[in-house]
Amino acid sequence: MERELINRLAKALAEIPLIDPHTHINPNQPAAQSLDDLLGYHYYTELAHSVGMPHDPLAKEFDPLERTRIILKHAQHYENTVQWSWFIELCQTFFGWEGDRIVESDADCLWKCAQEKCQQPDWSEQVLKRSNVEKVFLTNDFDDPLIGFDVTRYVPCLRTDDLVFKLLEPTVSQRLHSATGIDVNDADSVNQALDRLFDYFKKNGAKACAISLPPNFEPMPLSDHDLTAAMKHQDHATIARGVFWRIAERCHSHRLPFDLMIGVNRKVYEKGVYQGQDLFDQRTSLIQYAKLFNAFPEVPFCVSVLTSNQNQELASYSWIFPNVITSGHWWYANVPFLIKRDLTVRLQAVPMTKQLAYYSDAYKLEFVLPKFNMYRRILARVLAEEYVLERHWSEEQAIALGQQLLRRNIERLFSN
Amino acid sequence: MERELINRLAKALAEIPLIDPHTHINPNQPAAQSLDDLLGYHYYTELAHSVGMPHDPLAKEFDPLERTRIILKHAQHYENTVQWSWFIELCQTFFGWEGDRIVESDADCLWKCAQEKCQQPDWSEQVLKRSNVEKVFLTNDFDDPLIGFDVTRYVPCLRTDDLVFKLLEPTVSQRLHSATGIDVNDADSVNQALDRLFDYFKKNGAKACAISLPPNFEPMPLSDHDLTAAMKHQDHATIARGVFWRIAERCHSHRLPFDLMIGVNRKVYEKGVYQGQDLFDQRTSLIQYAKLFNAFPEVPFCVSVLTSNQNQELASYSWIFPNVITSGHWWYANVPFLIKRDLTVRLQAVPMTKQLAYYSDAYKLEFVLPKFNMYRRILARVLAEEYVLERHWSEEQAIALGQQLLRRNIERLFSN
Amino acid sequence: MERELINRLAKALAEIPLIDPHTHINPNQPAAQSLDDLLGYHYYTELAHSVGMPHDPLAKEFDPLERTRIILKHAQHYENTVQWSWFIELCQTFFGWEGDRIVESDADCLWKCAQEKCQQPDWSEQVLKRSNVEKVFLTNDFDDPLIGFDVTRYVPCLRTDDLVFKLLEPTVSQRLHSATGIDVNDADSVNQALDRLFDYFKKNGAKACAISLPPNFEPMPLSDHDLTAAMKHQDHATIARGVFWRIAERCHSHRLPFDLMIGVNRKVYEKGVYQGQDLFDQRTSLIQYAKLFNAFPEVPFCVSVLTSNQNQELASYSWIFPNVITSGHWWYANVPFLIKRDLTVRLQAVPMTKQLAYYSDAYKLEFVLPKFNMYRRILARVLAEEYVLERHWSEEQAIALGQQLLRRNIERLFSN
Repeated sequence: MERELINRLAKALAEIPLIDPHTHINPNQPAAQSLDDLLGYHYYTELAHSVGMPHDPLAKEFDPLERTRIILKHAQHYENTVQWSWFIELCQTFFGWEGDRIVESDADCLWKCAQEKCQQPDWSEQVLKRSNVEKVFLTNDFDDPLIGFDVTRYVPCLRTDDLVFKLLEPTVSQRLHSATGIDVNDADSVNQALDRLFDYFKKNGAKACAISLPPNFEPMPLSDHDLTAAMKHQDHATIARGVFWRIAERCHSHRLPFDLMIGVNRKVYEKGVYQGQDLFDQRTSLIQYAKLFNAFPEVPFCVSVLTSNQNQELASYSWIFPNVITSGHWWYANVPFLIKRDLTVRLQAVPMTKQLAYYSDAYKLEFVLPKFNMYRRILARVLAEEYVLERHWSEEQAIALGQQLLRRNIERLFSN
Repeated sequence: MERELINRLAKALAEIPLIDPHTHINPNQPAAQSLDDLLGYHYYTELAHSVGMPHDPLAKEFDPLERTRIILKHAQHYENTVQWSWFIELCQTFFGWEGDRIVESDADCLWKCAQEKCQQPDWSEQVLKRSNVEKVFLTNDFDDPLIGFDVTRYVPCLRTDDLVFKLLEPTVSQRLHSATGIDVNDADSVNQALDRLFDYFKKNGAKACAISLPPNFEPMPLSDHDLTAAMKHQDHATIARGVFWRIAERCHSHRLPFDLMIGVNRKVYEKGVYQGQDLFDQRTSLIQYAKLFNAFPEVPFCVSVLTSNQNQELASYSWIFPNVITSGHWWYANVPFLIKRDLTVRLQAVPMTKQLAYYSDAYKLEFVLPKFNMYRRILARVLAEEYVLERHWSEEQAIALGQQLLRRNIERLFSN
Repeated sequence: MERELINRLAKALAEIPLIDPHTHINPNQPAAQSLDDLLGYHYYTELAHSVGMPHDPLAKEFDPLERTRIILKHAQHYENTVQWSWFIELCQTFFGWEGDRIVESDADCLWKCAQEKCQQPDWSEQVLKRSNVEKVFLTNDFDDPLIGFDVTRYVPCLRTDDLVFKLLEPTVSQRLHSATGIDVNDADSVNQALDRLFDYFKKNGAKACAISLPPNFEPMPLSDHDLTAAMKHQDHATIARGVFWRIAERCHSHRLPFDLMIGVNRKVYEKGVYQGQDLFDQRTSLIQYAKLFNAFPEVPFCVSVLTSNQNQELASYSWIFPNVITSGHWWYANVPFLIKRDLTVRLQAVPMTKQLAYYSDAYKLEFVLPKFNMYRRILARVLAEEYVLERHWSEEQAIALGQQLLRRNIERLFSN
């Protein structure tokens, strides 16, 4: 009976058209062109490497079908993982795969199935439709021209990691010059360059600004004088603080929410595969952001935490600070058990209008569906257990709560 | 069947007369005088503020019925929270409210229902009786005269935050002078003043001493010489350590348990509503208290942690240290999901005679019932799942375990 | 139905012959000789002390039967704990105890039952057989001669705590001299002594190296020059780093996995009973081991964490680093609720070939069965809920996954 209730709720949630508020989709090539694009997702290459796959098959010139065979072979060591279950569901949904498993010997057959679909000219539209997706948010480099795509479907979002953490690296300052015409060498020029970027993004449909931050980062204001000095001395930690604060100021002036993705240490595993080198340090606290949250009461900070342990902090800070929004279940915390506990605590303690349910973080459209399905099954279960059964809400009320998280809050928060 | 079992256990637990070992009740006005007293609970004002309510309606001179309307309007944004569910249950139980929800348009009607009850001269006695409450512990300022109430029903408890963290603030030292006749300006006078306070509280029925502590606090002994020096230099951090240690010494000499409420940072959200400004830093450890626990083997330390992450530490320290008692589920950790996990770990790993089940932390008697009901439903579920079903205990044994936590341990620990 | 499914899976898992990859068994006296050996397990003495038992009954000369009575008397305060449930199950299984509880008045009778069994000459073989145990790994002091037992049944493992943390203590350097003929007074002699120990252990069937580490430990390489200098200055923290790194080098050269048991602070409760003085500081991170994991890609590091909070780090580091293996559920994290959540996250996120299910950590063979039974019931439940019901795996697949964790990974990792 409980299982039937969960199924009914899950079905109702699946009918809500999705807005995916954070992805890495390339709007000019949003869907996969072959199976290689899908098995090349860092989840599968890093897990394959973790169970012994060397680097060679990941070379660009390596034969993609042979690479597929090799990844499938190694996948047998991790078919227990939820990451792998996304791939199975993806193949079943989009490529008509009928088995429950996919092993090395399936490589050629599966490759062919995928090719047939991915080569169709309207494939990305088919995927969006089948996935019931209305919009996906992008993560654009600051020098992205933002042209050639429909910004009401693929919504630009200004990613600011490079500006904050690599401003003085030659490639970055050159890209910044190309994008803005400005050479940054002091606070004044930084301020001007940021203004131009924000103006350009805002004019071209950007709805948010985003950044990922290391666990020890602690935002602080910095005077123009001190930022200029830090730039002279190549003091990168101070520059990062100064630039970050200025970006928050522009989120305020341009009325853009600021997505904070807190807690990642880069290049921890030095010989990891591409995008499979980053880990974290659980010793981090949102208290590091208290000054920021106090300073910008009108900027919605959509906060994702990499460490599920930090979720009680996130729930509490969002309960107290009007401008702190809980946002999704990120990366290493995007595991069903952790999602369930983090979601339950948020639902029990945070106003429902201050929670962004989930984002896929996907690089290819095909992953939006299985990742959101995972989330929605968990949401349906929590709504069933905590609201319908425990608190005697009607199913309609429970579904409305789900809709608030999945859709209405996103529409409201990213409306400017 | 499992649900019926849980219901039977919950019913049996509800029949145990409550002792609430930590509240902020004012014994001279223990129950609400109007709905405004209840919706003025910081949980509702801070959540309303969190979803957009400005500060103005919280001004003293603001019309209380209009304030009620405004809070109810904002409550629709947080009716998913467990905090709100306490209010619904309270209105249903005490004011005969029949609906499942309470919205803005219910304000006048609900106000009237509440007035009818709250104005009755024996209202607080009615609430106590209906709630099956026998005693509530208070949290008394050090200069509270402790008069005008029955100390066997409203049990005094010496709150020491001001002494430890604000000793040299003029208002505090003046209050201390008024209460003890002593001007504190060196270790000697501190020792004397503390002696007088403890003597007075003990003579007037106090059964415990309590304090809330920031996450980075680390108790250390301090010689009289060093305390005197610290007071001369206005070194507040050192004074805090010195005074805290002296309070622990008096808990020992006066045979009073010491309630440690660990982990709160004050005034994190600077513009928060009254009592809605405090948050925490999860990076804290009970190892900071090892010296204290070793130094006072005969003082029962009843430890509450604000960070649920710290619960494994609490369970382990209580399993090892004879004088460490687990105590309730505090504030930001007082959320059903967190209670369930923290309670389960404690039951699985800590002797049952070293656990204080729960306290309401309430400011008005009406909140004791819904908060304890939340706790008891969770306790009933854990007893059902972990003891009756998993370990095949009889229901009587399971209920006896509940009684141990809810009642017998409190009686034993606070008996001096 | 779900309960029946769990039972079927648990039964199938129980049929897999066990290899217990970490114990403190004495191979020359592996089983108990009396009830006193079992109730003397630190879990029971420390819990008894925690509820008030003084130290006197633990003196060597104290009458063992009287000690049994005293511990049983105190056990009534902690019969809610899972630790106590192991003892009940042990008595039921091995001594034919028929009750569900064991109280003080049962002391004499239970003592007699135990004596009858423990005195039988083949008792340890009976226990192994009844427990379906094929091999147990030992934890051998570096100067253990490793003689007088069958190393294919009782597998040696080199414990290195003393070498790393107490190298210059006179008793340790003397023991090291006795074992290797070498006086350690500089890096050269340390290198030589370690070589001899590793050669000896490897030649005598050792299959792993092990160490327990404090929460703030951070491995770093140290040149011979700097180690020699540190030894001259008795700089124990630096010596520890230098010796630890050299041990890791020898794990590499001798192809031995390195068991890292991370997070214990020794002697926190100074007056605790024997082995009941150690606790922890949750503020620790696997980032401290990043340099180590990067430096020794071919050494399998089997990592146990004392703090369950750290489990998400462990799962993530094992998902990314090919040489990081998740290992068991240790000590204060060996509590059903914590096991279930830690296991679930590992199963959902870490390749199944990189997980060591469980070890008993037992001092006497009788504890292997109840501890593994606890684990297997949890594993069966997780397999049922997460794989058979949620992901529609067949029961055979789910059991194969259990077998991978319980048996196949141990065989593979410790095969050299």
